[in-house]
Amino acid sequence: MSTTIAVDVGGTQLRVALYEGDEGIPYQQARIPTRSSRGAAIDRLIELIASLWPAGRQVKAIGIAAPGPVNHKAGIIYAAPNIPGWIRLPLRTILQERFGVPVFVGNDANLALLGEWRFGAGQGHHNLLYMTISTGIGGGVISDDRLILGESGLATEVGHVTILPDGPLCSCGKRGHLEALASGTAIANYVTAELSKGRHSSLSDQPALTAKDISKAARAGDPLALEAFARAGKFLGLGITNYLHIFNPSIVILGGGVSQSLSMFRETMDRTIRESVMSPEFIHNLTITTAALGDGAGLLGAFTLARSPEEEMI
Amino acid sequence: MSTTIAVDVGGTQLRVALYEGDEGIPYQQARIPTRSSRGAAIDRLIELIASLWPAGRQVKAIGIAAPGPVNHKAGIIYAAPNIPGWIRLPLRTILQERFGVPVFVGNDANLALLGEWRFGAGQGHHNLLYMTISTGIGGGVISDDRLILGESGLATEVGHVTILPDGPLCSCGKRGHLEALASGTAIANYVTAELSKGRHSSLSDQPALTAKDISKAARAGDPLALEAFARAGKFLGLGITNYLHIFNPSIVILGGGVSQSLSMFRETMDRTIRESVMSPEFIHNLTITTAALGDGAGLLGAFTLARSPEEEMI
Repeated sequence: MSTTIAVDVGGTQLRVALYEGDEGIPYQQARIPTRSSRGAAIDRLIELIASLWPAGRQVKAIGIAAPGPVNHKAGIIYAAPNIPGWIRLPLRTILQERFGVPVFVGNDANLALLGEWRFGAGQGHHNLLYMTISTGIGGGVISDDRLILGESGLATEVGHVTILPDGPLCSCGKRGHLEALASGTAIANYVTAELSKGRHSSLSDQPALTAKDISKAARAGDPLALEAFARAGKFLGLGITNYLHIFNPSIVILGGGVSQSLSMFRETMDRTIRESVMSPEFIHNLTITTAALGDGAGLLGAFTLARSPEEEMI
Repeated sequence: MSTTIAVDVGGTQLRVALYEGDEGIPYQQARIPTRSSRGAAIDRLIELIASLWPAGRQVKAIGIAAPGPVNHKAGIIYAAPNIPGWIRLPLRTILQERFGVPVFVGNDANLALLGEWRFGAGQGHHNLLYMTISTGIGGGVISDDRLILGESGLATEVGHVTILPDGPLCSCGKRGHLEALASGTAIANYVTAELSKGRHSSLSDQPALTAKDISKAARAGDPLALEAFARAGKFLGLGITNYLHIFNPSIVILGGGVSQSLSMFRETMDRTIRESVMSPEFIHNLTITTAALGDGAGLLGAFTLARSPEEEMI
C-alpha cells in the first residue's frame, strides 16, 4: 500500500499528514509555525516533509492546500497572503524536483470544499456551494462533480462580487463586495461605526472589536450586536440567492469562524433567501448547513486531490 | 452517414434543421409560427418533424433548444414563456415515444452558447461566459469545457442576480437584478422615467419606446439616449466583473438585440470592468466580443448536443 502526503499551508501553521489507502485518517502528522526566525517557510516546509518521509514505503503523491490564488495547472502560487516571498512561487516544481513524486497544488478554499465533499457535510451531493466566512469571505463551487476553477485557477472568488455599488470598502480595494458587507471584519466595522455615532451598547468601552466579541455580546442580547449579525445575515442571504441562481446547488456549506455564530444570523439570512429567490425551485430540497470538518478540511482536500488528481481537478 | 435533427423552439417560430456528419451546415430546414389557430404547438412541432423525416436514412438523435428553464436530465420543460400549455412538459418522452430515437433537450441560452463555442465566436476557448441581452438578460457558462447546469438544470440565470438592492423591479418580480438595470427593457424604462420627469430629448414625443428606438436616437447623438446606454454599460460592467471573479473565463460573448448596439455602451462597460476587477489577472488575455451566429446559434447548439450529448451535458 502506498502513502499519500497532504500539506496544508496556513498563514500561521504548516501542517503535514500521511495517509494510507483511501481512508481519510492520517497515520502520522506534524505541524510547525509558518513564520519563524529559523528560516524561510519554503525551506522549513521541505525539511518537515523530509523528516516525515516514510522509510520503505512508496509515496504516491503530495497534495497541497495553499492560501490565496493558485494556478492549479502549473502548481504556482500567485501570492500567498501572510507568507513573505511567496509570490509566483512554483511550488509544484520545487517539491517535485526535491522529492521525485507527483505534486498537486490547490487553493485552500477549493480544497476545503473537496474535503467537505468527500468526508464532511457535502457527502453524496453533486452541486455544492462552499463559503468560508471569517476575516474575509472565500469559497468554492462543485458543479456536476467538478470543481469550478476557471481559465487560470482564479474562479469562485465568491466574496468579491459587488452587491451594493458604492458600499463599504473591501479588503481588495473595491467597494460594496459581499466580503465588505458580511465578513467578520464587516461586522466589526459596522459596530465600530455605529458606536462612533454615539450608539449605546455593552461593547461601548471595548477597544479593537472583533466579530467574536460581537457574537458574545449578541448571545447576551446586546441590541447593536444582534443588529450587526442580522445585517450581515441579510447580505449573506442576498449573496447566497445570487449563487443559487448562478449555480443551482443542492447544498450550501458555511465554514469559517463567523459560521460558528450561525444562530445569530440564520433567521435573517433564511428569510432573505426565501424572499429573494426568483422561483421556489431554487430552494426545493436545498440544504444550508455548517461545515463538518473544521480546520481539518484543507488537509483532507489536499489528500483527496493527491489520491485522484485527474478526477478532481485536471 | 446518419442524420441529426435539431429543433429550436422560439416564442415566435418553431425551426427544424437536418444535418449530416459533423458539419454545421443543414441539408434541409423549415420553420413555422409557434402560435397558430391550427392546433397546439406540440402537435404542429411533431407534424413538422415527421414531414421532414429523412426516408431511407438513419436518424441518430434529435436535439432541442427550448425556451425557459429546462430539466436537461429528464428532458422536461418547466415553463416556456409565450407558449400556452408548456408547463412541466415532458418533451423528451413525448418525442422519443413518437419517433423512436434518442432526444436531448437543453435551455436555449445554454445551447446558443454551445453553438457559439463549437461554430462561432467561442471556438478554441475552454472557459466561456455568454450573455444574451434583449428584452431580458439570460446566458450560459462553460467551465473547463463543460456547461454549468446545476442540480435541476436551473443554473446560470446570469440576469437574475441582485447588484443594486432596492433597485428597479425585474421581470421576475424581484428588485435590483442585472436584468432590471441593463436589459433592453431596463434601457427603455430608464428613458421613459427620465422623460416623465420633464427631460428633453428627441424621443420626447415617441410613444412606447423600445431599446431599438433609443439606440437610433443615441447614434444620432441624443444626450438622454446616450446616457441610458452608458448607464446600462456601467451595470453590465459591474455584472460582468462579478462573473469574471466567479468564473474566470477567457472570453465573454454578448448576444441578443442590445448587443448590436455595443458601440453605444462599450466604453462605459469596459471602463467599469477595468476599474472594478480585483486584480489585473482577471482581464489578462480576456476577450469580450459579440456573438457570431445570430439567431442560428440555438439550432447549432441543439445539433451539437444531439451529436455528442454525453460530452456536452450528461
